Amino acid sequence: MPTRARNPFPLAIITDFGYRDHYAGVMKGVVASIAPGAPVIDIAHGIPAQSIAAGAIVLRESWRYFPARTVFLAVVDPGVGTARAPIAIETRAGARFVGPDNGLLWLAANQAGIKRIVKLTSPRHRLTDVSATFHGRDIFAPAAAYLWRGVPITTLGPALRPTSIVQLVLPHPVESAREVRGEVIYVDGFGNLVSNIDRPVAEHFGSRFRHKYLSVRIRGGASMRLLDAYGDALKGVPLAIFGSFGLLEVAIRDGNAAMHFAAGPGSSLSLVALEGRT
Amino acid sequence: MPTRARNPFPLAIITDFGYRDHYAGVMKGVVASIAPGAPVIDIAHGIPAQSIAAGAIVLRESWRYFPARTVFLAVVDPGVGTARAPIAIETRAGARFVGPDNGLLWLAANQAGIKRIVKLTSPRHRLTDVSATFHGRDIFAPAAAYLWRGVPITTLGPALRPTSIVQLVLPHPVESAREVRGEVIYVDGFGNLVSNIDRPVAEHFGSRFRHKYLSVRIRGGASMRLLDAYGDALKGVPLAIFGSFGLLEVAIRDGNAAMHFAAGPGSSLSLVALEGRT
Amino acid sequence: MPTRARNPFPLAIITDFGYRDHYAGVMKGVVASIAPGAPVIDIAHGIPAQSIAAGAIVLRESWRYFPARTVFLAVVDPGVGTARAPIAIETRAGARFVGPDNGLLWLAANQAGIKRIVKLTSPRHRLTDVSATFHGRDIFAPAAAYLWRGVPITTLGPALRPTSIVQLVLPHPVESAREVRGEVIYVDGFGNLVSNIDRPVAEHFGSRFRHKYLSVRIRGGASMRLLDAYGDALKGVPLAIFGSFGLLEVAIRDGNAAMHFAAGPGSSLSLVALEGRT
Repeated sequence: MPTRARNPFPLAIITDFGYRDHYAGVMKGVVASIAPGAPVIDIAHGIPAQSIAAGAIVLRESWRYFPARTVFLAVVDPGVGTARAPIAIETRAGARFVGPDNGLLWLAANQAGIKRIVKLTSPRHRLTDVSATFHGRDIFAPAAAYLWRGVPITTLGPALRPTSIVQLVLPHPVESAREVRGEVIYVDGFGNLVSNIDRPVAEHFGSRFRHKYLSVRIRGGASMRLLDAYGDALKGVPLAIFGSFGLLEVAIRDGNAAMHFAAGPGSSLSLVALEGRT
Repeated sequence: MPTRARNPFPLAIITDFGYRDHYAGVMKGVVASIAPGAPVIDIAHGIPAQSIAAGAIVLRESWRYFPARTVFLAVVDPGVGTARAPIAIETRAGARFVGPDNGLLWLAANQAGIKRIVKLTSPRHRLTDVSATFHGRDIFAPAAAYLWRGVPITTLGPALRPTSIVQLVLPHPVESAREVRGEVIYVDGFGNLVSNIDRPVAEHFGSRFRHKYLSVRIRGGASMRLLDAYGDALKGVPLAIFGSFGLLEVAIRDGNAAMHFAAGPGSSLSLVALEGRT
Repeated sequence: MPTRARNPFPLAIITDFGYRDHYAGVMKGVVASIAPGAPVIDIAHGIPAQSIAAGAIVLRESWRYFPARTVFLAVVDPGVGTARAPIAIETRAGARFVGPDNGLLWLAANQAGIKRIVKLTSPRHRLTDVSATFHGRDIFAPAAAYLWRGVPITTLGPALRPTSIVQLVLPHPVESAREVRGEVIYVDGFGNLVSNIDRPVAEHFGSRFRHKYLSVRIRGGASMRLLDAYGDALKGVPLAIFGSFGLLEVAIRDGNAAMHFAAGPGSSLSLVALEGRT
């Protein structure tokens, strides 16, 4: 298959469809029908149902580990069948993103550098019958498959201006005299609480307190030490760490921090300077 | 690999084996050993354990979105190791189905048009040691892999008459003067209650009540409006819709209708004509 | 792609990362970047979190059903970021294993016949930035992908002696006058309780009691019959069987034995000789 030999990059899929039904599988069937030989990678179908922010964060943390021209097909779509547009985005980094215009694609596409956005309107590049309930199958999977096959993005529909699509903005941490106030933006499957505080912010803050201890406080209460590895903690003891997102996390070794602290997206998570000996 | 270039269609798998163990993975290992290069697609391994009807409905809703000659390997098999036969079915639409003769393949194969059925008895087309507990690995995966490679179905064993295999019959809705009485036949991972009432039945009924409202009633109690899109409902408010199955569903936007109504397969779900203004 | 045509064997992945996050997906992205065209197979990502023994058992039960030269990438890694070494193992059977040196690879590699072990230290065969929290992405996935591409294992780092890596030893059953005392070593997703008593041990024991009944006793209490197939039992009735592992299991047809008996890894499970008629 010449198409394939020239196109060894994957088509990678993220959804909140779960693993109980055929929804994700049917999308892969549509891809296989339109783009036979496309290497399909399931990133995750277990995004919490309807959670656009969780899907957007997962997509942002995933895209740069894939081959440059990968087509990402992402569907978390509580507004399916309403006026929200179906879109595709081409980026300067090479990655392409296909999904609903509800913020889901924004974090990743913005990081990859938005080059072109189109609204998916071409009737030749969707299934013949488009339902009001399953655009993943009827619109997004076909568009992603045609992009993988080399159809120019501009063929899929009219251009949209970057400022006209929905932007998902995560909260910024706030630095004050004695703390950086952040919040939990993501909870992973291990129960780790991932915050919006990245390493540069923490280092800037820490550099002001050479002779003090830094501590991490969750929900304004319990505080814990900042460690270098999960395995450095005792079992069952809470710890803070810069995790694989490059963001400050609160975790419990062999435990579940989200349950332990009854915390989730929106819970406060701060970096605090404590008095201490030199 | 010449075999592959001529056979770009996939081998697609549905089971109730879940994602905690190696059972589905081992089947894929057997397929890769016998049919190297076969593009394997996981449709779903999260079918509710031992639920033949759920598996049969998922397979029926999946097959027609795949390339024409796809081989479907389906295993929901509470009778493994007993007298129930292992079978393969060739259809007029091109799809092939491999699995236990317990009704699991019936709805899909019947829809695709049964052309030929064989009982999987050929010792050369199964693993050397066949266990009494895992025919998915020992019998079904090898048979599916050999079919994918181009082995004629008649090589796998003796023909069976279509009337001799187990037929899974879903209940039919009953239309009366003021309602169409249906029932829930499937609950998806979002908690949506999928009924056996399809659009033609509903339209025929509705056409008799031009001046009345149509309403959907679940378990003889709560009734709700028929909408065009999930997103047209308010969050948390129950709605009825023709979903991606083409069947009447009851759903709750950003909620779980199965839990809310304590309903599941077998619960009554009816379309009712109400008095109303013109 | 010549590499691919010569290498149709798969790269198969087992982790405890679950299906909610991008962790397993990102590993597949790294593999696709380094080894485009490698057929990736997800064995399971639902290993119970941090359970090295469960992962080791699943890997041991999987490897021999895959093509001979398959590369297995396994990550259950509570000690990530600490002193435990990252390793790769080449076996006499042909299979290659990549993962942490914490016992996870031991059962499978030992069964396949360990030929060579290396510590993964080569900076050219890992990602540029190695985190302290995600060696699956940063070290293991790259090493597995390079092995798949044909890079010699000795290029990945210095050799380790087999006696220097962590060995995971499962408990042995103990045969006495009237019973074989074993224990549960694995609980599968159906709730089946898999013991450490294999068929040869059971047959040796049984051959001494020609005129007595054999029974299986769980947690020193309830006892049940040894059957040939799950389907031979009535629904809801406990049974014992030699399952797909080739090990004695306790199961409940259409039920969950682990919940029913409140049993799990470590619970006693014995084969007992009862008095009986000839």
